[in-house]
Amino acid sequence: MPVVKTKPVPSDLEIAQSAELIPIRDLAATYGLEEDDLILYGKYKAKVHLDVLERLQNRPDGKYIVVTAITPTPLGEGKTTTSIGLVQGLGQLGHKAAVCIRQPSMGPTFSIKGGAAGGGYSQVVPMEDFNLHLTGDLHAVSAAHNLCAAALDARMMHERNYPGDRWAKRTRSEKHPNGLPRLNINPYTITWNRVVDVNDRALRNIVVGLGDKWDGYPREAGYDISVASEVMAILALVNGNNYREALRDMRTRIGRIVVGYSFEGKPVTTEDLGVAGAMTVLMKDAIHPNILQTLEGQLAFVHAGPFANIAHGNSSIVADKVALKLADYVVTEAGFGSDIGMEKFFDIKCRASGLTPNAVVLVATIRALKMHGGGPKVVPGYELPREYVEENLELVEKGAANLVRHIEIAKLYGVPVVVAINRFPTDTDAEVALVQKIATDAGALAAVPTTHWADGGEGARALAEAVVQACEQPSNFRFLYDLDLPIKEKIRIIATQVYGAADVEFSSEAEQQIKAYEQSGFGNLPICIAKTHLSLSHDPTLKGAPRGFIFPIREVRASVGAGFIYPLAGEMKTMPGLPATPAFMNVDIDEDGNVVGLF
Amino acid sequence: MPVVKTKPVPSDLEIAQSAELIPIRDLAATYGLEEDDLILYGKYKAKVHLDVLERLQNRPDGKYIVVTAITPTPLGEGKTTTSIGLVQGLGQLGHKAAVCIRQPSMGPTFSIKGGAAGGGYSQVVPMEDFNLHLTGDLHAVSAAHNLCAAALDARMMHERNYPGDRWAKRTRSEKHPNGLPRLNINPYTITWNRVVDVNDRALRNIVVGLGDKWDGYPREAGYDISVASEVMAILALVNGNNYREALRDMRTRIGRIVVGYSFEGKPVTTEDLGVAGAMTVLMKDAIHPNILQTLEGQLAFVHAGPFANIAHGNSSIVADKVALKLADYVVTEAGFGSDIGMEKFFDIKCRASGLTPNAVVLVATIRALKMHGGGPKVVPGYELPREYVEENLELVEKGAANLVRHIEIAKLYGVPVVVAINRFPTDTDAEVALVQKIATDAGALAAVPTTHWADGGEGARALAEAVVQACEQPSNFRFLYDLDLPIKEKIRIIATQVYGAADVEFSSEAEQQIKAYEQSGFGNLPICIAKTHLSLSHDPTLKGAPRGFIFPIREVRASVGAGFIYPLAGEMKTMPGLPATPAFMNVDIDEDGNVVGLF
Repeated sequence: MPVVKTKPVPSDLEIAQSAELIPIRDLAATYGLEEDDLILYGKYKAKVHLDVLERLQNRPDGKYIVVTAITPTPLGEGKTTTSIGLVQGLGQLGHKAAVCIRQPSMGPTFSIKGGAAGGGYSQVVPMEDFNLHLTGDLHAVSAAHNLCAAALDARMMHERNYPGDRWAKRTRSEKHPNGLPRLNINPYTITWNRVVDVNDRALRNIVVGLGDKWDGYPREAGYDISVASEVMAILALVNGNNYREALRDMRTRIGRIVVGYSFEGKPVTTEDLGVAGAMTVLMKDAIHPNILQTLEGQLAFVHAGPFANIAHGNSSIVADKVALKLADYVVTEAGFGSDIGMEKFFDIKCRASGLTPNAVVLVATIRALKMHGGGPKVVPGYELPREYVEENLELVEKGAANLVRHIEIAKLYGVPVVVAINRFPTDTDAEVALVQKIATDAGALAAVPTTHWADGGEGARALAEAVVQACEQPSNFRFLYDLDLPIKEKIRIIATQVYGAADVEFSSEAEQQIKAYEQSGFGNLPICIAKTHLSLSHDPTLKGAPRGFIFPIREVRASVGAGFIYPLAGEMKTMPGLPATPAFMNVDIDEDGNVVGLF
Repeated sequence: MPVVKTKPVPSDLEIAQSAELIPIRDLAATYGLEEDDLILYGKYKAKVHLDVLERLQNRPDGKYIVVTAITPTPLGEGKTTTSIGLVQGLGQLGHKAAVCIRQPSMGPTFSIKGGAAGGGYSQVVPMEDFNLHLTGDLHAVSAAHNLCAAALDARMMHERNYPGDRWAKRTRSEKHPNGLPRLNINPYTITWNRVVDVNDRALRNIVVGLGDKWDGYPREAGYDISVASEVMAILALVNGNNYREALRDMRTRIGRIVVGYSFEGKPVTTEDLGVAGAMTVLMKDAIHPNILQTLEGQLAFVHAGPFANIAHGNSSIVADKVALKLADYVVTEAGFGSDIGMEKFFDIKCRASGLTPNAVVLVATIRALKMHGGGPKVVPGYELPREYVEENLELVEKGAANLVRHIEIAKLYGVPVVVAINRFPTDTDAEVALVQKIATDAGALAAVPTTHWADGGEGARALAEAVVQACEQPSNFRFLYDLDLPIKEKIRIIATQVYGAADVEFSSEAEQQIKAYEQSGFGNLPICIAKTHLSLSHDPTLKGAPRGFIFPIREVRASVGAGFIYPLAGEMKTMPGLPATPAFMNVDIDEDGNVVGLF
């Protein structure tokens, strides 16, 4: 099937549309999936029914490789492309391999970045499905989330409109002969926004419930982008050895979600609203992982899409588990740098899944190292300054401090590290050699240049060989912190050992929140810190490997359903906006009915 | 496959879950659909690719039957159930038949009514898919609609934040070397709400754009339920003889949508916002109609879901067109009474499709006739007063005035009418005979009791026979009004000839709006009146066949993309609310992972 490669490399869209795809049923069969394991969505995408985990329970797991990166420039360092390229490279070596990535949010797709399904000759196809609705999981997340929001506001309105005894009388039923209890929700404690999968900044701060007394309960509210929903985090963290178990786990987690507090200070859950069952029903199909394919005909799992800065940033546990039963090598991507997505991969996702990773692949670009070394600002949409396209060993060497720190972070977890140098045509041999030396000196098992963007799997052969070797090394995987430490202590361990902070400063609001969570019994959850991805610290302007800073925690939330404490370092926007000339302006249907402009 | 029928009739859910379904691929094959015509969504649902219209262009169309009803009680008169039962009855007679119905909104499903896929032994299955996400069309409508809303608010914000020359400078590009034009949108003229498929009354009246100057443009706004979206109306009205043509028609209609007016009074369209192409791309899969099956193994098309009171209330043209190529009898349902859904079916849908209906089936219940005759109020969730469960010929005779009027309305269009008396166990033979006499005296070709709810297709055999006979009659189909009449005249014709009004009263706001639309060149569109479904008039308390009332038009909107003028008679809520004890409270997953409580 593979595409015929040409130089110069055509546009991503041209490559994707010229690829001859394998019917997903046939491709799945080569991995041992039977037709009954699949829920087809047309010819080239499908869901894999989770009961396959039971059918294949005696099959040994493949090797488990997590792809992370150094601190990126705003252009990104090609982590998804490298994950796909690596799997294609493993295929070139004759290994059965699969990649696990997140479903993109349509918000950014139509806003700034256009579609993203890898790039060049390392892509996941069909790209339109990948970038648009896929199989509707994100829509299911939004529907479940917003049903809960409507339930919350309606409950407050009805409780207010039926004062005293009238509430119990109005809500009497066979199931509730004495009527429903009053929840007495304090509107100022509500943490459950509404969500939409659009970059709609006008919804960040809104007032709802205006009109008359039957039009809701007037209060300040807001919208987040759907991938920031706790329901999305739950989808990514659900675990089980078959469909029934996974659905039960989802039901339990959804029922634990805290949406706010009563005037008496008691947590109010989706269970209290009576909406947890319906939310789970809305998510019952989304729970099965989706499969597409790489340009070179390998399985690509695409399931769940939490952002790594404002959520835990990893694709679903169940996708990884299914992939590990089908492939000898499973490459899973963690969002942003090792300080963010990888830390959460290890301390949150692996803790929930019980899976042990065999190797870390750390993606670096010469371009990003130069930026960390003091190169000029990199701005999307503008031409790169010449420092980035001409040899400059001094900037590379200085900036490599960032790479060294990420290697050290990965090694904290006892897992072998391979550095993938995602090589651009303008990178010189001397620059690459310098990075290789610094990386291996810092403890990386290998540092390998890779040209999968231009050359597909062929370009990632050397990387794939290094990864295979790394997987033969002993992995002494360990978590960074124990769950039974106090919340503040867990945050401190991450901030000092991973980010390089001297200490953590908690706002008085954060101190109070932490105390309340520990009193409510949420103290033993892992930590999911929301912070910028553009620095190891909380401050996006601190490049390289900053040390000695005080890491500020402004506010602490609890995602009790997903199962983590969620401290915020600085202002994190949970709803992006559209620019003055958004990407959607280029998207259209041509005369033949084809999609144009999605890249 | 069919279910084994038992008495007493089990719950809808029990029947649906006990049915042994035919794989949709196999069922489709019996209608001449090839595997390449289908886009499978699992085993029991699929989309039919619109290119099938080209492949089968030389096949003659089947007979085209529209199902409508008398003015209903708030309980509904079983129109969907009768549509399904009739198709099952046609099957019992050995005819190849298919039913076309709308996709339900999840808003009401989780609010008051629970799931609805017919009932008893006349259902469409699988019912969970029917009632939940189906193939995601409704989500696509919401995504396209809300992308446009975000585009609108972002444009207003950016134009404000870049005053003078700065706007042109900021938006310069290769495509727009002089920058984008200023749209100067007047926030008080915006007619484009946001939408969500949840009954969320707190979103009826909101203020958006609060925060700082980069958080949007502060203004009053609101949400409608997704099925009220003009994008949904467009999905239902798109026409074409293959995929490319239909998609092109959709692109044209979406690009015509007027979202508001500039301060200079010029209409602002999605094309002006540059978002029409992206909206169409979001709808490119939704355009193919979905197929499920009846309990007796016939094709059920489920496509588009506009409400009949606040929209045009009919399933899609393309679904009907595909069905007519595959079946000898196609039964399509129009929402609410003949004054609403059927009038719009004829004057809007048939005008857009060019299809000619062969027969009208008018569903009546003894219960509803008694209510029109002066029986006590019927309230969902409460026991029926005894007038409705004991013989009362006087109430039936008095209330039959409503039935007579609906027969007259249907005959206005020159199409043969068959009355289906949806018979309940408590209806007496004398009551049924009385209705039959009145109906045939009023000009119905036949009036046939039907018990498809209890007996499936067997119970609708007599009805099916009458419908087959009606389809042999000459149909002298004609539209009610010419498009080139002035808007006010078209409204007057509908109000007087269909509703029975003496005259129409236009508010001064409505007068102004009509004038503006005619000046903007929208004067020759058909009319889609929004009014209560609980009376032939605008006043839900006027039962029977009211005459002599003045029909008030409060406001007139224009759905230029969908292609109709949209006058509002009285306050029509476009966003329903959740009651104090919503239906979602019963919905859950049981220990085995099955859905419970969806009925």
